[in-house]
Amino acid sequence: MRFFSDNAAPAHPKVLEAIVAADKVDAAYDGDAWSQRLDGAFSDLFGTEARAFWVTTGTAANCLALAALCPPYRAILCHRDAHIEVDEAGAPGFFTGGAKLVLLEGAGAKVTPETVAAACDRIRNDVHQVQPAALSITNATEYGLVYRAGEVATLGKLAKERGLSFHMDGARLANALAATGENLADVTWRAGIDAVSFGFVKNGGLNAECMILFRTELADEIAVRRKRSGHLLSKGRYLAAQILALLEDDLWLQNARAANAAARTLAQAAPQRLVYPVEANEVFLNVSTAEADRLRVEGFDFYDWGPGEIRLVTSWDQQGEPLERLAAAIAAL
Amino acid sequence: MRFFSDNAAPAHPKVLEAIVAADKVDAAYDGDAWSQRLDGAFSDLFGTEARAFWVTTGTAANCLALAALCPPYRAILCHRDAHIEVDEAGAPGFFTGGAKLVLLEGAGAKVTPETVAAACDRIRNDVHQVQPAALSITNATEYGLVYRAGEVATLGKLAKERGLSFHMDGARLANALAATGENLADVTWRAGIDAVSFGFVKNGGLNAECMILFRTELADEIAVRRKRSGHLLSKGRYLAAQILALLEDDLWLQNARAANAAARTLAQAAPQRLVYPVEANEVFLNVSTAEADRLRVEGFDFYDWGPGEIRLVTSWDQQGEPLERLAAAIAAL
Amino acid sequence: MRFFSDNAAPAHPKVLEAIVAADKVDAAYDGDAWSQRLDGAFSDLFGTEARAFWVTTGTAANCLALAALCPPYRAILCHRDAHIEVDEAGAPGFFTGGAKLVLLEGAGAKVTPETVAAACDRIRNDVHQVQPAALSITNATEYGLVYRAGEVATLGKLAKERGLSFHMDGARLANALAATGENLADVTWRAGIDAVSFGFVKNGGLNAECMILFRTELADEIAVRRKRSGHLLSKGRYLAAQILALLEDDLWLQNARAANAAARTLAQAAPQRLVYPVEANEVFLNVSTAEADRLRVEGFDFYDWGPGEIRLVTSWDQQGEPLERLAAAIAAL
Amino acid sequence: MRFFSDNAAPAHPKVLEAIVAADKVDAAYDGDAWSQRLDGAFSDLFGTEARAFWVTTGTAANCLALAALCPPYRAILCHRDAHIEVDEAGAPGFFTGGAKLVLLEGAGAKVTPETVAAACDRIRNDVHQVQPAALSITNATEYGLVYRAGEVATLGKLAKERGLSFHMDGARLANALAATGENLADVTWRAGIDAVSFGFVKNGGLNAECMILFRTELADEIAVRRKRSGHLLSKGRYLAAQILALLEDDLWLQNARAANAAARTLAQAAPQRLVYPVEANEVFLNVSTAEADRLRVEGFDFYDWGPGEIRLVTSWDQQGEPLERLAAAIAAL
Repeated sequence: MRFFSDNAAPAHPKVLEAIVAADKVDAAYDGDAWSQRLDGAFSDLFGTEARAFWVTTGTAANCLALAALCPPYRAILCHRDAHIEVDEAGAPGFFTGGAKLVLLEGAGAKVTPETVAAACDRIRNDVHQVQPAALSITNATEYGLVYRAGEVATLGKLAKERGLSFHMDGARLANALAATGENLADVTWRAGIDAVSFGFVKNGGLNAECMILFRTELADEIAVRRKRSGHLLSKGRYLAAQILALLEDDLWLQNARAANAAARTLAQAAPQRLVYPVEANEVFLNVSTAEADRLRVEGFDFYDWGPGEIRLVTSWDQQGEPLERLAAAIAAL
Repeated sequence: MRFFSDNAAPAHPKVLEAIVAADKVDAAYDGDAWSQRLDGAFSDLFGTEARAFWVTTGTAANCLALAALCPPYRAILCHRDAHIEVDEAGAPGFFTGGAKLVLLEGAGAKVTPETVAAACDRIRNDVHQVQPAALSITNATEYGLVYRAGEVATLGKLAKERGLSFHMDGARLANALAATGENLADVTWRAGIDAVSFGFVKNGGLNAECMILFRTELADEIAVRRKRSGHLLSKGRYLAAQILALLEDDLWLQNARAANAAARTLAQAAPQRLVYPVEANEVFLNVSTAEADRLRVEGFDFYDWGPGEIRLVTSWDQQGEPLERLAAAIAAL
Repeated sequence: MRFFSDNAAPAHPKVLEAIVAADKVDAAYDGDAWSQRLDGAFSDLFGTEARAFWVTTGTAANCLALAALCPPYRAILCHRDAHIEVDEAGAPGFFTGGAKLVLLEGAGAKVTPETVAAACDRIRNDVHQVQPAALSITNATEYGLVYRAGEVATLGKLAKERGLSFHMDGARLANALAATGENLADVTWRAGIDAVSFGFVKNGGLNAECMILFRTELADEIAVRRKRSGHLLSKGRYLAAQILALLEDDLWLQNARAANAAARTLAQAAPQRLVYPVEANEVFLNVSTAEADRLRVEGFDFYDWGPGEIRLVTSWDQQGEPLERLAAAIAAL
Repeated sequence: MRFFSDNAAPAHPKVLEAIVAADKVDAAYDGDAWSQRLDGAFSDLFGTEARAFWVTTGTAANCLALAALCPPYRAILCHRDAHIEVDEAGAPGFFTGGAKLVLLEGAGAKVTPETVAAACDRIRNDVHQVQPAALSITNATEYGLVYRAGEVATLGKLAKERGLSFHMDGARLANALAATGENLADVTWRAGIDAVSFGFVKNGGLNAECMILFRTELADEIAVRRKRSGHLLSKGRYLAAQILALLEDDLWLQNARAANAAARTLAQAAPQRLVYPVEANEVFLNVSTAEADRLRVEGFDFYDWGPGEIRLVTSWDQQGEPLERLAAAIAAL
């Protein structure tokens, strides 16, 4: 059974239904009725004017935002374990035209005001060193930790003081919000976020992600960059329809709650093995190679994450028997 | 009724079925069972070893190929009306890192050996001028004309002599083949093509295109470039499944034949108005503004294409009543 | 004797003296006393606040300006024969990160308001086509024609209306001004020019060019781009000293006048053979291959420029006997 | 008195003489007699076939080499304190089109086989992570330490095993060789170096640096990249002449020996304060702020280098009285 990533989970039935329902002739690109509803839908959801850009990958969402927020000759601050640094094949360098990632340390892939300030202070303010232009955080982090609204706001304030734009990789933003129950606006634009990559694929979507832009004056540039990078699909309605389906009746939140609940079930099976507190839908466990092998023999599929450590990721569709079986197997190790 | 482009047509029912059938847990990215079948399926189809890369847009297919075939400091020869020049927002410059398009003239957006040779001859062979590295043609062309296998082979031979790689934008390759009944291999790799963007979205697909690579030694580089440009979807199975559905029982050819037949129906309604011979699924007509208005009043949707000229594009799903009605309306102008 | 280009002429003795005089310890990069005088010197010369950036090539001057004036996803309008298109190995694409050059026609490499307007009008204002962001002209043109202040102002007005930045490649700006006696300010910033590449190497310099920026808010960005492209020399004083020497007592104008006078001498030798009126220091002549051979046998070195056409370029140091000898040889053809 | 950097030292008298001697008409760009001698001169010096490219900055030399050795989608391993990472404004990202620098730790800015191997091992060999393509070291390092031929060879062997190209930033290569008396060939191509940035500006040059290429099959590409980045000066003879003057009678080695001797004089004044052993021409001293102030009051100019640490760099022209005075001042602290 798959626990290696939520990014391979099935699409939610309502998403499939929405795709089928969108299978009619309409305008091309993002001129269709579904795509045209997105700006309004997200502006309502966030409670502020926002511009929404569907894309098909988190990498595209992240890097379109970063390209607009950081010129080629400046730098983006991010955690050393951030997805944009570790798992996007250098896409930020490609999209920005050569901007640099300056890497921050921090437990659980979390960025703190201290690490940001220290990184800025280390950079001499002259023409020889690459000056920072943006800060990017991931929420929930790559280790499943969740930034509270207050934490984001503190970082946002610092970013502003330092002249940095502020981006959030929200591949698992739904899980973060489901964890804290906090308000979407508080965790994003009210906390100073300029653009957020709002993940849907890991949360019931089929292949639609969405980049939400609060600095709406950058919308035209991003629209061009999306086209120019090959991310303006001609039948955009099939992407927009997925997103709208997930927004309806807060299905995105329900899905995230289910995934988080599944992670809690696993966490509770062996609290003493937890590498990080389980806040969202990722569970990192201290497990020996032999123990990991045993779990695999029982049919569970997951990644090793450094020596003596494994990663389990749950998704919206995981509950009931197989999940309980894994919990039991972990408890029995 | 839509005649503005085949790129907004509905997906074929079998494509939708295939997507639903692929809605199960599998490996992520292109590790799934569907994606893993693509190389074999296209190698069989083309009768030679090929590597297939699903993407979601023709722009991505074209530009990944061009980036691998042309270094940043060299040039790509293409027609002045080529999609890569006119309608991709400068994507070739972005993907290649600044390579130049050298524009060729020619009726009906067709490239000839003479224009290619003349363009090469005009470039001084020194360090000051950008030397050509690749030739790109579109088949069927942006004006619906079709290259015969022999024509492609002549260009291919010239490309080889001049040290040029050879790319084919096959957004409507299916329509081209349906028009001539020629062999896929003859029109592509046997004629010297190194990589072809094989269009499916305009031909019954939902959002899957495929770049087919014959210079397989470039496959690793292209795989990285696909990831790096944000085009490696995590649930690739939904793309691969679409493509496999269209390959099955030559559905792609059937769809193209249907679209071409629809175009012929329109062309025959007013042969004296044709700007170009109708070979594939595009019909360009000399029509006055008043006449165009009249067609629009009757509910037909299409693009103006320069003064006194309109473009009608047909697709796999267009036949029977509404098509006949448009034909009659054109005849009646 | 060299008539193939002014870019291989010797340095003026005062330039060499200035280099020797600058051979003392000072601050590095552009922190030295010579470099620090440049902004003031050019602000005085132009009669407005300007920022001056020494570089070592016209390509660097042009492309640093263009990179600041045109984002990667937009286009620069220029003449088809412009140096940035024809002779800089694609440097604009490299420096801008993939911006496109849109090529204009026009006799003598001259850009007209009509060609600019028509080029803009041809570009659909949507996300699929690359929108123009800048206009670049060369003064004197690649064929030695000179824009009058009024002509530049008309283009500048149009550029403003169309939302275009305006760059002047002034590799031979000195020759242009020497030809008309017009005012430097009138031909540049008062006419709407945002940045000018002010050529010195072809006009008595050793290896110093200067980019003059009137949109001073872009200065910081250009300073970074200069460093980032490897154009911030550590001993900048040797460049600044050359430029200051050429500015002193209007040596740059005297040099240009001498070069122009030499060109006139040649032009008057065979007015019936002139391809273009001779305004600056370039002479294009209709000359058969046999005639060209005869001139070469007599020791004159120049380029063929298309069939039956040769180019002669004069420089600050050419006068007296050898020049008269060439004039006589041309007259005698 | 200047001890802040050798990059602001005067040019050697023979360099100035050579420039004046080159002030005659010749071919443009690198077609002149001086430039044409460079390949031969360096092939002789290194005892193997080499191609030499003059440029005007170390940044250009480094980044032209790196752009040819590392594609845009791969990474360059270098020390965290390497000049290419710290002091070139992101030029490697610009020249390569977005390649990544992977940073290595190590005392004195020295790269070891262990850090290289560990960095490679940390990178998962898949499409999500940026794969390394090149290794770059600086010799002498940014802290004045010198790699022995054997050390370079060990790194070179490892690079080969790992499929990495191997670049040496030799801004102070002369000082390194002067320190060890080792053979130039042994420290470079025989040890696996593919390209070396051979510094002259810090060692008596005026504004000429040279990139030496041993993988001669890359020469054409680099020639184009040099032009395209604005580094092909039209009067190249003035650069080549400087380099030839410094090669004559091993003036480059004599200059480096003089600079190293000066550094030793300073080092011996306060051996107990040395942060690193003094091998080349850089002296890092533990000195309190008050002590540093005292030195500055006496007229010595240098950089602070972290808290309680200063950097003194000596150059070819420093000896005799002022140097002795600084040594005495240090000893007296």
